Amino acid sequence: MKRRDLLVRGAALPVTAATVLATPALAQSKTKVRWRMPTSFPTGLATLYGGATFLAERVAALTDGAFEITPFAGGELVPPLGVLEAAQNGTVEAGFTAGFYYLGKSPALMFDTGVPFGMSPRQHNAWMNEGGGLELMRDLYAEFNTINFPAGNSGAQMGGWYRKPIDTLDDIKGLRIRAAGLTGSVFAELGAVPQSIPGSDLYPAMERGALDAVEFVGPYDDERLGFQKVAKYYYAPGVLELGASITMIANLDAYNELPDTFKEALRTASAEANTEMLARYDTLNIAALRRLIGAGVELRSWSEEIMVAMQAATNKLLDAEAAKDENFKSIYAQWKDFRDDQILWSSVNDGAAQSFLATHRG
Amino acid sequence: MKRRDLLVRGAALPVTAATVLATPALAQSKTKVRWRMPTSFPTGLATLYGGATFLAERVAALTDGAFEITPFAGGELVPPLGVLEAAQNGTVEAGFTAGFYYLGKSPALMFDTGVPFGMSPRQHNAWMNEGGGLELMRDLYAEFNTINFPAGNSGAQMGGWYRKPIDTLDDIKGLRIRAAGLTGSVFAELGAVPQSIPGSDLYPAMERGALDAVEFVGPYDDERLGFQKVAKYYYAPGVLELGASITMIANLDAYNELPDTFKEALRTASAEANTEMLARYDTLNIAALRRLIGAGVELRSWSEEIMVAMQAATNKLLDAEAAKDENFKSIYAQWKDFRDDQILWSSVNDGAAQSFLATHRG
Repeated sequence: MKRRDLLVRGAALPVTAATVLATPALAQSKTKVRWRMPTSFPTGLATLYGGATFLAERVAALTDGAFEITPFAGGELVPPLGVLEAAQNGTVEAGFTAGFYYLGKSPALMFDTGVPFGMSPRQHNAWMNEGGGLELMRDLYAEFNTINFPAGNSGAQMGGWYRKPIDTLDDIKGLRIRAAGLTGSVFAELGAVPQSIPGSDLYPAMERGALDAVEFVGPYDDERLGFQKVAKYYYAPGVLELGASITMIANLDAYNELPDTFKEALRTASAEANTEMLARYDTLNIAALRRLIGAGVELRSWSEEIMVAMQAATNKLLDAEAAKDENFKSIYAQWKDFRDDQILWSSVNDGAAQSFLATHRG
Repeated sequence: MKRRDLLVRGAALPVTAATVLATPALAQSKTKVRWRMPTSFPTGLATLYGGATFLAERVAALTDGAFEITPFAGGELVPPLGVLEAAQNGTVEAGFTAGFYYLGKSPALMFDTGVPFGMSPRQHNAWMNEGGGLELMRDLYAEFNTINFPAGNSGAQMGGWYRKPIDTLDDIKGLRIRAAGLTGSVFAELGAVPQSIPGSDLYPAMERGALDAVEFVGPYDDERLGFQKVAKYYYAPGVLELGASITMIANLDAYNELPDTFKEALRTASAEANTEMLARYDTLNIAALRRLIGAGVELRSWSEEIMVAMQAATNKLLDAEAAKDENFKSIYAQWKDFRDDQILWSSVNDGAAQSFLATHRG
C-alpha cells in the first residue's frame, strides 16, 4: 500500500517531443515534469542522501517548480543497488547512485566513481570535464539506456576502523574486514578476508566480534554508526578511495523527451551539487574527526610498506581486469595517462604547497 | 563610435518587479533580459576570459536564451580594474573579476580571492558554501551595491620566473620583481622591490632588463606571454597564491529586478563555471609545463627557508591589516579558524594521500 502510494505520487507526466518542438517557448513555461529519483543511500547518510535533495531543489528552482524530482531513500522504491537497473528499464526516470555499485554489469564503471590510488575529486573533475572522461562514461551508461551526470563527491574516505594496530603486512593477514568492491579485492590480495555486510549490520557485527575491522566512509558518517565504541584504531590516508564520485543518472528515453532547458537544468544543477557535497563533507569531517579523537580514538597513518603493497595489489587487479575486457583496457589506459599527469602537476604545485602547510601551520 | 555601438548592443532591457510578480509563469517565458558583463581579463588569457563566456553560455542555455549576458574584454567597455565600480554605479549590470583587485576599497576583499598560505580551491569552496564565507563576502560586496557569485578558480599559481637561481633569502634582496597585491608586499618584506606593470608590458620589461623576475599566473598563461625566452628558472610551489577565486558580480538593483529563475540561473551557472575553469587550468597547465621543461626551463622548488620567511611575512602583513580595520580583523579570524581546520583535515587524509602518490607513481 505504501509502495503503491509512492508510485502514484511519483508518477511521471511524460512530455512528447513533438509538443515541445512545435511551440518551444510556450511549452517551456507550461510543461510540468515529475521524476522519481531513487537513491542508493539511507537518509541517515545525510550528506550522500542530502545530495539528492539538494539536486532536486536546485532543478526546481531553475525551472520555477516545473521540473519536480522526488528522491527516495535506498530500498524505499527499488533496492539500493538496483537503481541503475530501474532507470535502465524505465521503472523510474532517474537515480542518484555510484557507478562502482554495478561492476557486475561493466567493470569500467569503476572509473566513474574512483579507483584506489586514483584521482582526487579535483583531478576527477578535470578528467570528466576536460580530459574526455565524461564522454567515455556516457558511452558506458548509454549501454544501459541511461545518461550520467557527476553530482557529488565524498573526498578521500578513511582507511577504516581496526580493533588492533595494523603495523605491518602480517597484521592484515586473516583479518575479517568489511570492505566493498575493489577495496575488498585489494585487502584480499594482502591476505585479509573481506566481508560484504550492509551498513546497518556493521556495528552489531563489530560488537559481537564477527568482524575485526570495517572500512566505511569518513569521520562524519562513521561517527554516526558508532564505530568509535567498538574499535580504537582509525587509519588514514584513504589511498584506496581518494574520492567517490556520486552520479545522477536518467533513463535515456525520459531524458530525450525533456524540454531543452530542463536538460540544461539537470546538467548545471548536478555540477552545483557536485561541489556542494564535497564542501559539506570537508566541513563536517574535520569537526567529527576532532570529536572522535577527543573521545579516545587513536588516529594512525598506514605505514609506507602497507601503502606500497596496497598500490601493487591495485595495479595487479586493474591489469587483470584489462586483460579480460578490451573496453576496460582502453578506458584504463586513457584514464591512467591523465591521472599520471595530474599527480605530477599536484606534486609540483598544489600538493607540494599542501605538504608544506601540513608541517608549517604558521 | 565602436564604444557607442557596444553600449547600444549591450543595452539592458529592464524588467520591472511588478510585471514579474503579477504573472510569473507567463512573464518568465516572455521576459528578455540583456546584461553587459565587462571582465578584468584580456581575451588572450583564454581560461580566465573564457570563464566569462562559459558562464554566459550556461545562463543562456538555462533560460532558453531569454537571459543574455555579453562579456567584454578588460578595457573594452570599462578599465580592467574598474569593473566593480562600473557594476556598483550601474554603468553595467554585471562584471567578471577578482575581489583582490579592489583592496583599496576594502582590504577584506582579499578573502574573496585567496590569501598567501591560505586555502586551496577545494578548501575555499568549503569555506564559501558551508563555512560562512559566502555570507561574509556578500556583506562586503553589498557595501558596493553588488552581489557576488564564485565563478572560477586558477588553482595554485606558480612562484614566478627568475633570471638567476633564488637559493637563499639573500638572493631575493633588491630583486626587481613584478608581483601584484599582497604577493608584492610579501616580496617587499623580504627585501625585493616589487614593480606594478601591466601584463602586456611584462615580456618587453624582462627582455630589456628592467625587471629581474616576474610572478604572473601558471604554465598555460605564462607560456603564451613567452617568459621562457627571457628567464630560465621557474619556481614552485605557489604558496603565495594557492588559488585565485574569480567572481561574477551583479549590480544589486539589476539583480533584484530579475525573475527568480534568472537569479537561480546566475547562481547555478556560476557554480558550474567555478569547477569548469579549474578543470581547464589543471588540464592545460600540466601540458604547458611539460612543453616548458622540454624547451629548457629549469623547474625549481622554493627552499624551506624561503617559504618559512614568506609565511612569516604574510602573517605579519595580515596582522597589521587586522590592527587597522575591525571588519578585516573579524573576517580574518573566522577565515583563519576554518583554514586551519581544513589544513589539518588535508594533512590527515587527502593531502597525505597526494604526498604518497607524489613519490610512488605506481
